[in-house]
Amino acid sequence: MSKIDVALIGAGRMGSIHGPNAGRHPGMRLKYVIDPRPEAAAAVGGPFGAAHVSLDEALADPAIGGVLVCSSTDLHLEHTLAAVEAGKAVFCEKPLDLDLGKVVAAAPKLAKARLVLAFNRRFDPHFVALKAKVDAGAVGRIESLHLINHDPASPPPGFIPTSGGLFKDFTIHDLDLARWLLGEEIAEVYAAASCLVDPEIGRLGDVDTARTVLKTHSGRLCVISNTRRSGYGYDQRIEAFGSSGMVSAGNVAVDMVHAQTEAGSSGAPIKYGFLQRYVEAYRAEMDHFADVLHGRAEPLVGYADGLAALALAEACDESVRTGDVVKPGDYTHA
Amino acid sequence: MSKIDVALIGAGRMGSIHGPNAGRHPGMRLKYVIDPRPEAAAAVGGPFGAAHVSLDEALADPAIGGVLVCSSTDLHLEHTLAAVEAGKAVFCEKPLDLDLGKVVAAAPKLAKARLVLAFNRRFDPHFVALKAKVDAGAVGRIESLHLINHDPASPPPGFIPTSGGLFKDFTIHDLDLARWLLGEEIAEVYAAASCLVDPEIGRLGDVDTARTVLKTHSGRLCVISNTRRSGYGYDQRIEAFGSSGMVSAGNVAVDMVHAQTEAGSSGAPIKYGFLQRYVEAYRAEMDHFADVLHGRAEPLVGYADGLAALALAEACDESVRTGDVVKPGDYTHA
Amino acid sequence: MSKIDVALIGAGRMGSIHGPNAGRHPGMRLKYVIDPRPEAAAAVGGPFGAAHVSLDEALADPAIGGVLVCSSTDLHLEHTLAAVEAGKAVFCEKPLDLDLGKVVAAAPKLAKARLVLAFNRRFDPHFVALKAKVDAGAVGRIESLHLINHDPASPPPGFIPTSGGLFKDFTIHDLDLARWLLGEEIAEVYAAASCLVDPEIGRLGDVDTARTVLKTHSGRLCVISNTRRSGYGYDQRIEAFGSSGMVSAGNVAVDMVHAQTEAGSSGAPIKYGFLQRYVEAYRAEMDHFADVLHGRAEPLVGYADGLAALALAEACDESVRTGDVVKPGDYTHA
Amino acid sequence: MSKIDVALIGAGRMGSIHGPNAGRHPGMRLKYVIDPRPEAAAAVGGPFGAAHVSLDEALADPAIGGVLVCSSTDLHLEHTLAAVEAGKAVFCEKPLDLDLGKVVAAAPKLAKARLVLAFNRRFDPHFVALKAKVDAGAVGRIESLHLINHDPASPPPGFIPTSGGLFKDFTIHDLDLARWLLGEEIAEVYAAASCLVDPEIGRLGDVDTARTVLKTHSGRLCVISNTRRSGYGYDQRIEAFGSSGMVSAGNVAVDMVHAQTEAGSSGAPIKYGFLQRYVEAYRAEMDHFADVLHGRAEPLVGYADGLAALALAEACDESVRTGDVVKPGDYTHA
Repeated sequence: MSKIDVALIGAGRMGSIHGPNAGRHPGMRLKYVIDPRPEAAAAVGGPFGAAHVSLDEALADPAIGGVLVCSSTDLHLEHTLAAVEAGKAVFCEKPLDLDLGKVVAAAPKLAKARLVLAFNRRFDPHFVALKAKVDAGAVGRIESLHLINHDPASPPPGFIPTSGGLFKDFTIHDLDLARWLLGEEIAEVYAAASCLVDPEIGRLGDVDTARTVLKTHSGRLCVISNTRRSGYGYDQRIEAFGSSGMVSAGNVAVDMVHAQTEAGSSGAPIKYGFLQRYVEAYRAEMDHFADVLHGRAEPLVGYADGLAALALAEACDESVRTGDVVKPGDYTHA
Repeated sequence: MSKIDVALIGAGRMGSIHGPNAGRHPGMRLKYVIDPRPEAAAAVGGPFGAAHVSLDEALADPAIGGVLVCSSTDLHLEHTLAAVEAGKAVFCEKPLDLDLGKVVAAAPKLAKARLVLAFNRRFDPHFVALKAKVDAGAVGRIESLHLINHDPASPPPGFIPTSGGLFKDFTIHDLDLARWLLGEEIAEVYAAASCLVDPEIGRLGDVDTARTVLKTHSGRLCVISNTRRSGYGYDQRIEAFGSSGMVSAGNVAVDMVHAQTEAGSSGAPIKYGFLQRYVEAYRAEMDHFADVLHGRAEPLVGYADGLAALALAEACDESVRTGDVVKPGDYTHA
Repeated sequence: MSKIDVALIGAGRMGSIHGPNAGRHPGMRLKYVIDPRPEAAAAVGGPFGAAHVSLDEALADPAIGGVLVCSSTDLHLEHTLAAVEAGKAVFCEKPLDLDLGKVVAAAPKLAKARLVLAFNRRFDPHFVALKAKVDAGAVGRIESLHLINHDPASPPPGFIPTSGGLFKDFTIHDLDLARWLLGEEIAEVYAAASCLVDPEIGRLGDVDTARTVLKTHSGRLCVISNTRRSGYGYDQRIEAFGSSGMVSAGNVAVDMVHAQTEAGSSGAPIKYGFLQRYVEAYRAEMDHFADVLHGRAEPLVGYADGLAALALAEACDESVRTGDVVKPGDYTHA
Repeated sequence: MSKIDVALIGAGRMGSIHGPNAGRHPGMRLKYVIDPRPEAAAAVGGPFGAAHVSLDEALADPAIGGVLVCSSTDLHLEHTLAAVEAGKAVFCEKPLDLDLGKVVAAAPKLAKARLVLAFNRRFDPHFVALKAKVDAGAVGRIESLHLINHDPASPPPGFIPTSGGLFKDFTIHDLDLARWLLGEEIAEVYAAASCLVDPEIGRLGDVDTARTVLKTHSGRLCVISNTRRSGYGYDQRIEAFGSSGMVSAGNVAVDMVHAQTEAGSSGAPIKYGFLQRYVEAYRAEMDHFADVLHGRAEPLVGYADGLAALALAEACDESVRTGDVVKPGDYTHA
């Protein structure tokens, strides 16, 4: 496989995952890292011989075929637009932006772009296997869905104000999963939410525990369960209920060792956080982006999905604010 | 253990379970069976030497200490009131009645009665073990709850019109479980429901698939998942999420046999219906009623619980009808 | 179903299980209990109205169709012979006798008798389901077998001298299971055994921990794992390895409750002893004996099986004594 | 971490695993690949810039700190001796040699060498976690052990003649595991073996199905279960039975997806072969070798372990040949 040059924007938490995955990928060469902090750029790009350059330099280089947007959330959209305008394929961390209006406004430029939006759940091998089983008709038509997405421990309070809140930052993964698995748009949203984990989160105007009910136009139902602190690891499960049975994707334990004593059985904890749980999903995302870069695939998840999930997250926010059921806006033709 | 005489009202589906359990119980003698159909009464009572008598005769017999009310739902309240007035201890199948007003009106007579209301889930050994673990603080304070209650197959359409509908007939079990496990009253109810299983159920004005969200006064959340047809057996599970972990009660499989081939693993189905799943709960209910009869215990679940669960079921109905969040009436001091 | 009268010999540990199961069975009436201790006989037979009589009286009663032999092991054979000679069907606890010579000598009288030998594992629903899967060809021809049979806790030392030793008392169940599941006789036996649990068992000349390897004439292999004290309950498992996969029967837990915390998962212990684990097997044994009594079935397991298992147990003893591989005697045409 | 140069001998099946793991390791640089086939050497070494040289050249380079011996089994010992004599640390695939005499004779040169013998099970995270639990006393003193090691499918017949046979090629892993987990030498060996999978294996003088019983000097017991073709994947399990319970390491499934229908439950197969199952063990082996190279650790498993396991494998061969129990030679002071 030949290699296509890529540039990484942002050498922070997500850039430290995607950058090295790109650097080790047989179909890409990590040529540049763009980050205001030279040491951060060097730490991520150094082992792969990537140069620390400005965004303009990177985008001006015609050898660059793709850009990985891992900057802070408030810059995702700006960087994505710049890279698309420069003719690059883009891999962008979710969400595209926290402002639905801005995302809607970007439709003319992004709706047809070669843009892979990094909803990692869609690339997790367990969830992919579940989707395949559902699509193969293993349990008939899916009628309802449970999505469990519990973070192991509260984020630092400093993260909350710029996070966009629980729904835009965290639930957005599940809102995308629901659309993906049900293959149908959502007609009604109801979200019940509380601040039970950390009063500081409440003081900052956010919630930490929520149950969201989605209803599709044909009446199918989805429940999303979220909490910012599970106390037992990163609970990532799906249960899909069909007309002739159910399919579930369970958690992955740290190891397969069990003990039995008179007191009962005991086993290992589940994988603790997203770095452990989604390590294979992150690699599969990069495989997919390589396929897009090399013209072997169209993006599996892109602008329209990011827009739809954000519109649903906004409906969740409104439901919590008003205490009412909300009909999300229809952006499917954006 | 001495035996106290009891009478069974109703030799139908539930009477055929509770009657023999009473007949075999070391603390009771099944003396009478009351039922308009002599053959039905004989079939249930015969093996225990129980006589087929009228309700008046049975209640007039001072040797009768307790009455098992297993008549049709529309007669539960009338029979319970008659038995209580005759000074008997009563074991009554759920629900007390479908009409909340009538149940409220019965408060003066029933609030302090020796009345065990047969919410079988409270007596299931798995759910009892879960409750014990929660109460022992195994995972800290419970913040949210998932209750899964899926029937294996649709009831016959003829059952629907007198059933009271999905919420009063079926969800009522979960509404009671939620109160029991959370130890707190419900402040808000939202129910999303559809008719996805059987269009006939819809024509009869009922729903067959629902997700209900309960919020307590302190903000704790409970999701109830119901369907009339699972396609894989009687799915009866609980997941309780606490501040330091989760506790779950899983399904019981028909046997512990597993096969492994290149195609994967396979195992037995889960227990198919309530007769299989709750066989031990029904025995434990009768043990508890025997304890009440013999003065060794106060009813663990009675009038107040039946009233509260019915009020919540009515709130679910209203939520489905209006599409809104509903604040259930407060009957805790009824 | 009509009832056939039966007599119970022995109101001890096993009689207290089988007597009441017969007494409650719709196809039998427990008419007599024979036991040198009147109180023991009354305790078991009283609730069913069974009279305490002598063995001669019971066998002389032409109404008695069947006899349950639950006396001490050294009397099993004598009581079985007496009952068979009196024309009764017999249900006899294992083993028939500890002395192989005596059992061989009884062939003329017992080989064709209506005798059900109580190898309870053959009636366990989990093992029956495994056998059905194997017989249905779910994993091809069985090539090897693991039988795990671990007692929860050491028997009282007083039990050892009359027990016949680990192999005749305990392993005999597995030796029968091996023949049943493999459908082939055993050509070679090797048993490695130690006294690791309780030195007192060793002083009494017995062992408490053993691994036994059986090889059939066609070369198929079976390993039996035994210990007198598991420390975690009554471990009762089978793994059958076939040409296209494996089938296993796992342990049954006390309940289906699991907790997850940062420390890991935890669950209930497995069922502790034979009374808990084989409660359904004991009922199924009595169902089968009822079928034999009523002429609806031939004994599924009888004299020939008891003889074969005993001969294998004796081969195990010899293997431990000599440290060599032993070819068991061929009693299949006894 | 600085990098130390290493050379890989053998670019075949195992070299294709260890070479790239060394090449990607932060503590090593893969400088040379030695293999008679230039294309094979290039395929493995090329991506890491490793040169294709002769063994002499590689060993003569003072910059080379370590050598990975992945040549064919009959050359393991020769290559290891050459590398040790050249003052290199050695990572050698198992077994050291098929000829016990040759391995014994190498003691003066290898007993104190910096030699890591690649018994991959010792580095598997599941087995390491089991060992840690056992060492922490979770279930008291280990009294007996089950090791299950089933290959998914028969090797090509061409492999058999040079393989050393089932015990030296395959069981040797379990013989090493037994010593590691029991922490005690083996006093007696009995192996029962058959050719049930592929008659061609039998014609070549080997067996394909075996059960081996080991007894330690203190009487503890270990059963090893081996087959060349499981029909359900690579069955790799351990069960350790202690004085107060058991610890087990189960198989790893391909994914965590399960379906439930009226027919029962179904799930993914277990990982199919050693490449899938031991991918993490191979990485951990290279981590350990890096630690040895950098002087941060002594070899966890080396010459003495390889010798002991080989002596036990030879005892297994003798037991199968003679049909007797065999006392393995004592090479613990070799």
